[in-house]
Amino acid sequence: MDSLPLTLREAIEYIGTIVFAISGIRLAAAKGFDWFGAFVVGFVTAIGGGTVRDLLLDVTPFWMLSPAYLWCTLLGMIVVFIFNRQLVRLDLPFFIFDAIGLALFVVIGIEKTLDLKYPFWVAITMGTITGIVGGVMRDNFINETPLVFRKEIYALACVMGGTVFAACYYLHFNHEVCELSAAATVLIIRILAIKFHWHLPKMKLR
Amino acid sequence: MDSLPLTLREAIEYIGTIVFAISGIRLAAAKGFDWFGAFVVGFVTAIGGGTVRDLLLDVTPFWMLSPAYLWCTLLGMIVVFIFNRQLVRLDLPFFIFDAIGLALFVVIGIEKTLDLKYPFWVAITMGTITGIVGGVMRDNFINETPLVFRKEIYALACVMGGTVFAACYYLHFNHEVCELSAAATVLIIRILAIKFHWHLPKMKLR
Amino acid sequence: MDSLPLTLREAIEYIGTIVFAISGIRLAAAKGFDWFGAFVVGFVTAIGGGTVRDLLLDVTPFWMLSPAYLWCTLLGMIVVFIFNRQLVRLDLPFFIFDAIGLALFVVIGIEKTLDLKYPFWVAITMGTITGIVGGVMRDNFINETPLVFRKEIYALACVMGGTVFAACYYLHFNHEVCELSAAATVLIIRILAIKFHWHLPKMKLR
Repeated sequence: MDSLPLTLREAIEYIGTIVFAISGIRLAAAKGFDWFGAFVVGFVTAIGGGTVRDLLLDVTPFWMLSPAYLWCTLLGMIVVFIFNRQLVRLDLPFFIFDAIGLALFVVIGIEKTLDLKYPFWVAITMGTITGIVGGVMRDNFINETPLVFRKEIYALACVMGGTVFAACYYLHFNHEVCELSAAATVLIIRILAIKFHWHLPKMKLR
Repeated sequence: MDSLPLTLREAIEYIGTIVFAISGIRLAAAKGFDWFGAFVVGFVTAIGGGTVRDLLLDVTPFWMLSPAYLWCTLLGMIVVFIFNRQLVRLDLPFFIFDAIGLALFVVIGIEKTLDLKYPFWVAITMGTITGIVGGVMRDNFINETPLVFRKEIYALACVMGGTVFAACYYLHFNHEVCELSAAATVLIIRILAIKFHWHLPKMKLR
Repeated sequence: MDSLPLTLREAIEYIGTIVFAISGIRLAAAKGFDWFGAFVVGFVTAIGGGTVRDLLLDVTPFWMLSPAYLWCTLLGMIVVFIFNRQLVRLDLPFFIFDAIGLALFVVIGIEKTLDLKYPFWVAITMGTITGIVGGVMRDNFINETPLVFRKEIYALACVMGGTVFAACYYLHFNHEVCELSAAATVLIIRILAIKFHWHLPKMKLR
């Protein structure tokens, strides 16, 4: 963490948290949850992936070290309350922020794991867990099968971002280049997947 | 823990465990689980909240330190087997014990967290997790959306109990006063919510 | 762990992992998951029980120490892709391997817990968790109520295997005898349960 009041990285992380929370709040609302329930689903969607990662890595879950993530979820509630009617028309900006948030979450997950001296395959797994588990928990809460395994390439984008990180690292690229390449990979795959309706083929049993 | 064979606190905790277990056992039975499955759902309902709390706090899950919680679940099974037909008529006493158990679980969660030097907002969150996560897991097992976010004010009662605890603490009240005020808050809110059918408003998306 | 390149125990563990993964992959496929989603469900089915056990015991989750479990899941994917059509006819060998894997998972869970100086009732619980939680997570992912609590005696077989382990231990039997007796108990109960369609009675509420 820098000494700046709010670094660019923190700003992106908080925006990602808000956008993830909003996706949980909206789906919970559609299922008839009361507003406190919607808050909880939003919070879990936002912090679930990082929490499972931190439990597996045996470090204190990140959101227990700063109330910022609760505030971000509250802000997400307020956004849904106020801009409810307009949110539907804001699908594009939301998608962009969701993709940026996902890219950052993956990079954060990878770096935290590497800092703890785990090998790269664990780091890629943790980056993917950071990115997708919140969404899996959200869908579990609202009693649907997980969307991340059915909609446009989402979970695999995390793995590919992680693979690019590893490739850059083994090519001895500068640390920032590794980070940015990985994030850009996640972002670009998500944008292309949405634009061209890329889906992974379904598993078929004949 | 005192040196008494069974303190009042322990007695309440075990009764709360039994009542929580019974709620899990009955819902599992309604879903066609076999009796071992019902036992597991009852056990998870009773200890799930405290287990997640202990994992997040990185301490040994409380039920691994004493077999009492397994025995409480077994007792819950026996109660359901024997008093099955009468249980429906016992809804009122059950509700009372459930509310007392909830109040105690919240207080236990808060104190355990404060003992580990976490700030109050973490303690309130952990108190709430202790109170509600077992019920969320139960509903997840039986494949329903979580009841605690839809029925009479339940999860919010935990948060309000925690807030009262914090208020008493900052007003330098005696420790027992903090505990009792918090527990009373949870209990009273639950009783009023049931009596007057208080519900939180649903999140609505237009 | 021995110094042999692949001990009998490791071979059984990997085969168990592959078979557990295949059960997850096939159920995910039946629910319309894409292939990456099916991979994740297969992986979680194979490692979920041991992961929860290791989190509760506060040790590093076993699969983070070796990529072998990811490779086993990949192998499971390949088996499903290639032998898809034949798999249905292979139900018997699959059942045998599933039962052997289950038996081994239970024994591994018990021993890991005893090594950490927990009492036997915790070890039996952890053995059961190792055996069944992966399947519970799988059914949760695909949005079904857990099969392990409804089909032929499955979860209880784990408990009985653990009980036999404890009995042999207290009778001062040789360590290998304890292991083999426990594993044989799980295996035999599963085979008898399938052969004679043993089910536990359902909990009934009148």
